[in-house]
Amino acid sequence: MKPALALSKKLLIQIQSKIDGKTKPLGSLGQIETLALQLALITQKRTSNDETLAEIELSKPLMLIFAGDHGINQHNLSIAPSAVTGQMVMNFLSGGAAINCFCRSNKINFKVVDCGILSAVAKESFSENLLVEQRLGEGTQDFSAQAAMTLPQVEQGLAYGVKIVERSVEEGSDILLLGEMGIANTSSASAIMAALTSYSVRDCVGVGTGISPQQLNEKVALISQGLSRFSNVHFEDTTASVLNVLCEVGGFEIVQMVGAILAAAQQNLAIVVDGFIVSVAAFVAVTLDSNVSDYLIFSHLSQEKAHQLLLAEFKLPENRKPLLDLGLRLGEGTGAALALPLIKAAASFYNDMASFESAGVTV
Amino acid sequence: MKPALALSKKLLIQIQSKIDGKTKPLGSLGQIETLALQLALITQKRTSNDETLAEIELSKPLMLIFAGDHGINQHNLSIAPSAVTGQMVMNFLSGGAAINCFCRSNKINFKVVDCGILSAVAKESFSENLLVEQRLGEGTQDFSAQAAMTLPQVEQGLAYGVKIVERSVEEGSDILLLGEMGIANTSSASAIMAALTSYSVRDCVGVGTGISPQQLNEKVALISQGLSRFSNVHFEDTTASVLNVLCEVGGFEIVQMVGAILAAAQQNLAIVVDGFIVSVAAFVAVTLDSNVSDYLIFSHLSQEKAHQLLLAEFKLPENRKPLLDLGLRLGEGTGAALALPLIKAAASFYNDMASFESAGVTV
Repeated sequence: MKPALALSKKLLIQIQSKIDGKTKPLGSLGQIETLALQLALITQKRTSNDETLAEIELSKPLMLIFAGDHGINQHNLSIAPSAVTGQMVMNFLSGGAAINCFCRSNKINFKVVDCGILSAVAKESFSENLLVEQRLGEGTQDFSAQAAMTLPQVEQGLAYGVKIVERSVEEGSDILLLGEMGIANTSSASAIMAALTSYSVRDCVGVGTGISPQQLNEKVALISQGLSRFSNVHFEDTTASVLNVLCEVGGFEIVQMVGAILAAAQQNLAIVVDGFIVSVAAFVAVTLDSNVSDYLIFSHLSQEKAHQLLLAEFKLPENRKPLLDLGLRLGEGTGAALALPLIKAAASFYNDMASFESAGVTV
Repeated sequence: MKPALALSKKLLIQIQSKIDGKTKPLGSLGQIETLALQLALITQKRTSNDETLAEIELSKPLMLIFAGDHGINQHNLSIAPSAVTGQMVMNFLSGGAAINCFCRSNKINFKVVDCGILSAVAKESFSENLLVEQRLGEGTQDFSAQAAMTLPQVEQGLAYGVKIVERSVEEGSDILLLGEMGIANTSSASAIMAALTSYSVRDCVGVGTGISPQQLNEKVALISQGLSRFSNVHFEDTTASVLNVLCEVGGFEIVQMVGAILAAAQQNLAIVVDGFIVSVAAFVAVTLDSNVSDYLIFSHLSQEKAHQLLLAEFKLPENRKPLLDLGLRLGEGTGAALALPLIKAAASFYNDMASFESAGVTV
């Protein structure tokens, strides 16, 4: 797979000057302006050339919800049994979950990707536009005791992630929102974060959707056990090391999201990142290809405390901080869906707002 | 005018239990849940009785932008001359301002209320649905030297605010968003804040949309001069004292917003507050009628530093903090318009999301 293109800085001055000519005091729309600049640079890459300024197009947003199960949940690390992953997938498919409400409310198409939940749903009951089957197994292995998956599974998962994004681009999607569902997937996400950063396991572990202090201690112990099988990432061979981390402690939905993020950046799509789990997938993608970072929009700061620590690792400027901070800790892509109207507003600001000159304002 | 009704706590347990039965971990949608609870309580008052739970209706949001000019700007306290207020009003009317983009993007109707800008616009050129003329004069007097307006002007302004809200309710508006335009209106807002709170003038004064340190010092001196004409609010006769503050240092658009906020709460409408100036108007309204507070939704935390101090004075719980924190300092209602989709998402969550029971989820 080709790496993502770095955003062209050639048009930066021209785009910034278009933004600064709008009828408002300089910089007075704060992060909306930063967002407009980022979207304009991304759009430019996708739809136009470096000679003329294109409008930002965001007419077909797509939410992909990646679902998978986790063997480690046999230790009851979550508030819920693994069967709930499949039940929630059915809830997504029948339109009753929070993410359905927010996608309807904000006019976002969505698809659920079964990356390997315990039992496949009866796919003939649902349109292929709604349910995409890309199963890597019936949940991962318990990574406290053995590798979560094999290297061929990781490679297949990355390829699946690429495939769904390529298909979405063919269908006209012009911005990608990512969500996930997988009981106990914070355990996998925390383990990956601990393997790729210098934070301790305890720093990387949170209460998920609401576990007890005892469960938290057990979560730390089991993750540490998994991590003890291999040493930290060797940056002399980043790719092999990162793939090894995914084999050892990854999740099917996380691996497919990594592939999807790499592909979306490579196809010059803006990527709206949900909470902690999706941010971990994004961090893996950025570790594999640093240009990916330019395409990421962080939708919200999760209540999961490790999220803040992880975000700092992306080393983004203050004006690219997450758009929302509403105490969300649900996942499913809910934060990303809630943030989309801000992103569309930034596009509308860029495309439609008058300049001082055109409006006859004399400041 | 009758006071606003306190929200009924009778249905609180029933509404909270509906929220807690949704298919998600308890409380995992953070402020979206708080918002749903508040909206449900407000709707209940407006559309139903205390016996059955009503759906939250937010199908006709209305943005009212109150515009006025300020005599104190003869001291060049702003980055722009007062003529820019009128130019921006024309920009609103022709659809080219930031607030137009965000209202279009988020499907919000809007009206501009001329509360007394320097020169009236040619009103026959615009529909009465777009431009409402409620002029109290040709800008206020310079409040550093004399009272900004007379008591009859204040009373007329409050009545105008009530009138536009009553008309909007008749037209079917079911949530009110407030914005403002008025070169130098941060000076009036800061003076009102200093008069109604124990903060010093310097604490209440910010850089507005971007003035120099010298202008800032002059702003503090001129505001202090205005405040020296009268003593602080006497809480034994709050209403008379507050009206006196509005006479001495108020603004036409601020006074009309106070009337509008009192009326909206009295009519059981949720009120979406924009930045610093609208928050000052809301604080005046709450000082006059403490029940108003239950109807306020704070859309964003402005970059104007006094905003944070003022918000603390409302003594709201942490889960009612402003929905956005994007470094905005434009006004016009832009923060309120940007926050509306979050408010609609909260309604959709409350109205449409499945319960554990209905979805067959076993947690």
